[in-house]
Amino acid sequence: MATPSQHDLRNQFRELLAREECFFTASTFDPMSARIAEDLGFEVGILGGSVASLQVLAAPDFALITLSEFVEQATRIGRVARLPIIADADHGYGNALNVMRTIVELERAGVAALTIEDTLLPAKYGRKSTDLVPLEEGVGKIRAALEARIDPAMAIFARTNAGVLSTEDATTRAMAYERAGADGICMVGVRDFDHLESIAQHLSIPLMLVTYDNPELRDRERLARAGVRVVVNGHGAYFAAIKATYDCLREQREIADGNLNASELSTRYSTLEENREWARRYMDVNE
Amino acid sequence: MATPSQHDLRNQFRELLAREECFFTASTFDPMSARIAEDLGFEVGILGGSVASLQVLAAPDFALITLSEFVEQATRIGRVARLPIIADADHGYGNALNVMRTIVELERAGVAALTIEDTLLPAKYGRKSTDLVPLEEGVGKIRAALEARIDPAMAIFARTNAGVLSTEDATTRAMAYERAGADGICMVGVRDFDHLESIAQHLSIPLMLVTYDNPELRDRERLARAGVRVVVNGHGAYFAAIKATYDCLREQREIADGNLNASELSTRYSTLEENREWARRYMDVNE
Amino acid sequence: MATPSQHDLRNQFRELLAREECFFTASTFDPMSARIAEDLGFEVGILGGSVASLQVLAAPDFALITLSEFVEQATRIGRVARLPIIADADHGYGNALNVMRTIVELERAGVAALTIEDTLLPAKYGRKSTDLVPLEEGVGKIRAALEARIDPAMAIFARTNAGVLSTEDATTRAMAYERAGADGICMVGVRDFDHLESIAQHLSIPLMLVTYDNPELRDRERLARAGVRVVVNGHGAYFAAIKATYDCLREQREIADGNLNASELSTRYSTLEENREWARRYMDVNE
Amino acid sequence: MATPSQHDLRNQFRELLAREECFFTASTFDPMSARIAEDLGFEVGILGGSVASLQVLAAPDFALITLSEFVEQATRIGRVARLPIIADADHGYGNALNVMRTIVELERAGVAALTIEDTLLPAKYGRKSTDLVPLEEGVGKIRAALEARIDPAMAIFARTNAGVLSTEDATTRAMAYERAGADGICMVGVRDFDHLESIAQHLSIPLMLVTYDNPELRDRERLARAGVRVVVNGHGAYFAAIKATYDCLREQREIADGNLNASELSTRYSTLEENREWARRYMDVNE
Repeated sequence: MATPSQHDLRNQFRELLAREECFFTASTFDPMSARIAEDLGFEVGILGGSVASLQVLAAPDFALITLSEFVEQATRIGRVARLPIIADADHGYGNALNVMRTIVELERAGVAALTIEDTLLPAKYGRKSTDLVPLEEGVGKIRAALEARIDPAMAIFARTNAGVLSTEDATTRAMAYERAGADGICMVGVRDFDHLESIAQHLSIPLMLVTYDNPELRDRERLARAGVRVVVNGHGAYFAAIKATYDCLREQREIADGNLNASELSTRYSTLEENREWARRYMDVNE
Repeated sequence: MATPSQHDLRNQFRELLAREECFFTASTFDPMSARIAEDLGFEVGILGGSVASLQVLAAPDFALITLSEFVEQATRIGRVARLPIIADADHGYGNALNVMRTIVELERAGVAALTIEDTLLPAKYGRKSTDLVPLEEGVGKIRAALEARIDPAMAIFARTNAGVLSTEDATTRAMAYERAGADGICMVGVRDFDHLESIAQHLSIPLMLVTYDNPELRDRERLARAGVRVVVNGHGAYFAAIKATYDCLREQREIADGNLNASELSTRYSTLEENREWARRYMDVNE
Repeated sequence: MATPSQHDLRNQFRELLAREECFFTASTFDPMSARIAEDLGFEVGILGGSVASLQVLAAPDFALITLSEFVEQATRIGRVARLPIIADADHGYGNALNVMRTIVELERAGVAALTIEDTLLPAKYGRKSTDLVPLEEGVGKIRAALEARIDPAMAIFARTNAGVLSTEDATTRAMAYERAGADGICMVGVRDFDHLESIAQHLSIPLMLVTYDNPELRDRERLARAGVRVVVNGHGAYFAAIKATYDCLREQREIADGNLNASELSTRYSTLEENREWARRYMDVNE
Repeated sequence: MATPSQHDLRNQFRELLAREECFFTASTFDPMSARIAEDLGFEVGILGGSVASLQVLAAPDFALITLSEFVEQATRIGRVARLPIIADADHGYGNALNVMRTIVELERAGVAALTIEDTLLPAKYGRKSTDLVPLEEGVGKIRAALEARIDPAMAIFARTNAGVLSTEDATTRAMAYERAGADGICMVGVRDFDHLESIAQHLSIPLMLVTYDNPELRDRERLARAGVRVVVNGHGAYFAAIKATYDCLREQREIADGNLNASELSTRYSTLEENREWARRYMDVNE
């Protein structure tokens, strides 16, 4: 069976966007999971930023992974993937010029699409981790991203956080990114269909939602009607993998007590508390 | 808690070798599994060559992974490991000069110990994959490895295949590697205690066995008495992880039929048959 | 000849710092230049951030190179270097937590020393590229750097820009970094000996100057008396290399006109103007 | 100016092959040299294996560089190149299956063409470094290479050594590679036009010669008439660069004596003799 080209996979993703359907992503965090996802019929996979950080560094999602390390993981996946992969490229790893490098590197890795968000990353000295950059800065990044792209089939989504913005501000941002030329809008923090539809009615480009399996946002047909083409429900497949690793090793050591669940495992083995302590101590960030 | 230095971890491993005990390794194939293994009390972890190939490439164990890719995985692990890690460095990725690079690179990655085997790798045109290089070539590689080492605490084990050699030849090889200065002997294919002891009686350096959980070789005290300090039972933790990934993604797609076990998953998603077909077609290797 | 360990090279650098002498660095931008520098008797080499950007990316010094890419270049050098190497680690590639990763990565690469500067990098939307972060943020980064270090022999220098600060502010910053535990202070933009000595009199840790061959700062004995142990005169060896490459290729094409000098070559082939245009267009930075 | 896609550059190279002209390559060993070469009007560049080994490792051309390291250098170049680049991919870094990986990796790096040679690499225990693999093994590798290619525009040249084969055997090999589907034949060791033409008359695919500036093979029109489309005259631009680095550092240290030429520099700073000594000691190779 011939291997599809990167360009083919991007067109395949564009075709998904063109249908009035909503697709739920597989968490494709390494080459094996990408092969499994395609074999099981998933239409599209996602390499999450938080999961990449756990995979590559066993570190929490504190913007510690470098662009190169993220790209290396995307490359491992892109080498074998026969389904389109979306990369969660955080804030584009710096300013608008760094965004341009992010586009070039992820395009080389072979992703079909990527998201660039307007969160102020990495967390700034004394500031909250949910702060956003000003809108004009976010727009500059999207425009820079579009200029840096070589294969026009690769989709560039602008991502913003509807959970920390008023509905009006979220709409303003999404509309500005649409005008700047983004191929789609990715939103996190959407609470329910009312929230979604009040924003979506102002947009004409495809939407992608990161819902973390929010029970208010499960009706696929209604999602599709609102223009949502992609939903990221989370990364259950990855967390199942670390839970299984833990359980197997516990069994080998015949340890009966203290069984942790996936969330506890992720917290413990990413040294989340240690990193929070460093943030307090060296960056005056306390949250 | 202070992070141990690479040198500290190597000394920790040397102390294990000095005790009259036999330690079973954890399969530490990425940073999370290394953190979990240490937390659960494992004394030592192993990065297997076959597992690295699956992790990095989703490829079968056909010597397709490059030294650099293997070292990158060892580096990801070495960055966070607080327990000594043994690297299965295959044949040292080429001839004796390539072995020297292998030593330098894995030492930089931070492994506590590594094995260099005398299998003829990668499989040669028209030859069987179990063929070994001549003894003098294997000895040259071990001597080269020892010269390339900078931190003398890092342990270099010579590995050979007692499953394809007569007992006499296996013994001859192991003794030659001991004379060449190897810190230990690693053997695969040992059938049972008689087999083990008939070889081990001629050796005075520590032994490591890759047993794949051979039921004939489970008595830890007898293993210890024979000089075995390390046993690799397999990589169950990794296979449990891919099984869990598969099950989670199947459930998300609500697929009821065709549930594969870990071995079938590994075969299918490493494209083993496709690679065998290429070996037949382009290398006249048929096995 | 035995290869020195990373720890040995760090102690060698510490011994240089302990002497009342001032050493001028070789520009060691790749493995060959590091071998040449050691053979010619240089006591210490430096991997410059700007030169690494040119080497790895052919990009201007706009904080476009990732930590991983910089570390890869440092690793290529560290693999063969028999003299201590100082890495110019820019701002530590992000916030204080990213600084911690920078320390770990460059320590693994084998550098003997590194500098972390307090410039606001990468350039921020609408801000000048010479802006500095607040002092307390800079101090937090130095303290974080010290905590992340595993081999205490590796020297961590705090770098600041005396060219954009008043003498008083430069002194305040340097003193604060000394109190935070920095092993030395690196300064750029020092104008002359009066300027130097007015700052240096308040410091008791070793100084390093980036002078770009400032004719006012060439007296080695006076530099040494002021506590300067290391001077970076620039990266002439690298610019000579690109000039020679250009001249050779021009000759092969028999091109007679338009001969560019090293500075023009660097500007032209790093696409400096193109990057400035992007900064104007997407980041509202115009300088 | 829009960046050309990898596919565009490959088509550009195919157009060169289709003209009845002979093009002399620029040595493009890093991103800066690739930018310079394109700006000076070179039609095509080459990343040499020997030069990559010096650049990345400061090591002699003993097959010490890994596929990944070579690909990393090709990637650095491919990221900025606006002219087609030919990669000298040695023997494809292993057997036919490794060749398949070589194709995939270099295609991802963006090269326009590559050569796979039939030298027995890395040097085998007790064998001469000029030994070739059997013809059927070489043919298998070319067939495997063709199967692995995704973008059919990327040109795959089979390379053989006319300097160690009889004219008849060289012709037999070249014809077999043409029948296997190679896009072109690359030859080293051709002595003069008689030698060239006696082989070339049996071939109908484009030729590439590595001549090391052989004075017998400089007539471009006659080369073109014999079907030669590409000539690699050597890597003067790289050697000029290391000579300039050396001279600049010598001047900084005010060293008057012992001035070495480029060839001596390459020998000395690649530690060629040290590696030869290791080959004698550990591999019974003495040449």
